[in-house]
Amino acid sequence: MNKTSRLDQQLDFLLEIDKLKQIYRRNTLADGTRTENTAEHSWHIAILAGVLQEYSNDSVNLERVLLMLLIHDIVEIDAGDTYAYDEKGYQDKEDREHLAAERIFSLLPEDQYAKYKEIWLEFEDAQTPESRFANAADRLMPLLHNYLSGGAIWVDNKIRKSQVLKRLQPMKNGSEELWGGALDILDRAINAGYIINDDPR
Amino acid sequence: MNKTSRLDQQLDFLLEIDKLKQIYRRNTLADGTRTENTAEHSWHIAILAGVLQEYSNDSVNLERVLLMLLIHDIVEIDAGDTYAYDEKGYQDKEDREHLAAERIFSLLPEDQYAKYKEIWLEFEDAQTPESRFANAADRLMPLLHNYLSGGAIWVDNKIRKSQVLKRLQPMKNGSEELWGGALDILDRAINAGYIINDDPR
Repeated sequence: MNKTSRLDQQLDFLLEIDKLKQIYRRNTLADGTRTENTAEHSWHIAILAGVLQEYSNDSVNLERVLLMLLIHDIVEIDAGDTYAYDEKGYQDKEDREHLAAERIFSLLPEDQYAKYKEIWLEFEDAQTPESRFANAADRLMPLLHNYLSGGAIWVDNKIRKSQVLKRLQPMKNGSEELWGGALDILDRAINAGYIINDDPR
Repeated sequence: MNKTSRLDQQLDFLLEIDKLKQIYRRNTLADGTRTENTAEHSWHIAILAGVLQEYSNDSVNLERVLLMLLIHDIVEIDAGDTYAYDEKGYQDKEDREHLAAERIFSLLPEDQYAKYKEIWLEFEDAQTPESRFANAADRLMPLLHNYLSGGAIWVDNKIRKSQVLKRLQPMKNGSEELWGGALDILDRAINAGYIINDDPR
């Protein structure tokens, strides 16, 4: 393969992922004015991981964490954003996302397809220090967003404490300290009437 | 300073930068449907830098390049996006952006203020391998975007080849190879009638 066609493949991939800017999530921006798209969400949690790295349970390779967070949701270009509490959507989420990863990362040259697919799978499996911390970062930000924008999405969907706890659970494996902070915010959200307390511990 | 107040400062910073999602640039998305905001632009060029790292003139610390690109435009929260060919806007751009950097990075704990301010200044100065390559990445993406979305912003602003060449010039210091690719795209944009050829070399 010559250099030109390699660069062409890389540019094709980079243009394809422009579409992530048009995938809208359920949560709004912190000021509540509009919903957030997945590209800007990915930007935000990458910076969050950089700034909060010191709270990771294990020491991590930050370069890998950043790459992981930047690409972790690229599959939503094909598979769409599945709402965290959409039980039906979650049934075939994994299949849809694996197909998407295959198509999108295949635009890259072979060696980079292998590299980025591996990073994506590592995030999904959440077994390594890097992916455990990346998953904690990915869970923390929407909690902050929803709380600060007045909890509308929780209220509208009658979300219960047990659901949020289950959703946040992976944070513990990435950062005990951020998990503690998340529980604090959860308590405040319950006290504010944003989340139904079905689990009075 | 105890851990709690340190985390509070970090979260304040992370919430403040949410505003970058509402700073709109002049260029559109690749499909031309809407203008791009600076948060999603920053996400895109960070991935671009990861995927095109092999073309950097010098070997780079990718972690630093990624952090640099993620935060390089945060100052636009206060200073706004200054259009690349707005000569008047550029006169006080530097002052406005330095004030903004001071205010926004000051939300972080002292050690992180120092770290991120230094990374931001390094990008602005464009003297190190990391910042030269990061600047090349930052210049390449809008060129691609404008070309692929039909060149409307160039046509509307009667942009000339000499202006684009001057704008792209820093790419050469970061990556001779990507600079070559950019010149190719520039030629194609001139042939398509998007850019006025005032410099028939």
